[in-house]
Amino acid sequence: MVQYLPARLDASFAALSDATRRGVLEQLGRADSSITDLAETFHMTLTGMKKHVVVLERAGLVATDKVGRVRTCRLGPRRLAEEMAWIEQHRQLWASRFDALDQVVEDLKQKERADGT
Amino acid sequence: MVQYLPARLDASFAALSDATRRGVLEQLGRADSSITDLAETFHMTLTGMKKHVVVLERAGLVATDKVGRVRTCRLGPRRLAEEMAWIEQHRQLWASRFDALDQVVEDLKQKERADGT
Repeated sequence: MVQYLPARLDASFAALSDATRRGVLEQLGRADSSITDLAETFHMTLTGMKKHVVVLERAGLVATDKVGRVRTCRLGPRRLAEEMAWIEQHRQLWASRFDALDQVVEDLKQKERADGT
Repeated sequence: MVQYLPARLDASFAALSDATRRGVLEQLGRADSSITDLAETFHMTLTGMKKHVVVLERAGLVATDKVGRVRTCRLGPRRLAEEMAWIEQHRQLWASRFDALDQVVEDLKQKERADGT
């Protein structure tokens, strides 16, 4: 198994576990946006949206810049490569277990056929 | 954008946001295991491990069977395909924005060269 920084995966998967936060990432994938605009888009209070942005920022998924009174959000430095790798590795392990199970069933069938003749 | 069931993604990403729970999935990818054995492997109390298993079970990532007093855990029906698709889609969006940025820089450079001659 490849070793990842567990705390980093904890933070990013937790950040992704909320539909609004995933929506914010999709929105920022299209264009940078102020927190005020994001709050409007997702029908939330400014305070509520700020909390979501903080969670995304801590996970490295969003970066913000404040110019005057406007805080603009953009996609952060993390590109979810490790998260993707973890899931992919898990799926492969899973598939190989199912393949192994298929083999057991196949072996049993062959044994049955051999016993039957 | 492909539409996913948000509540399902919420539950699975939340389940993945804990290093012990990810470890349990890796362990079950290798072999089925009783909750008692999982608790021992991860140096946890039985109560603590049961809570993690409930979170994984609700997300569909683990299934359990109770025979007598032993509850055995195995990988559940969900194979994280949607989670993977969401992340992949996000990464593509991200990459295309960076490509667009590269193009802007390239255009500026060409303009500069044209102005310089």
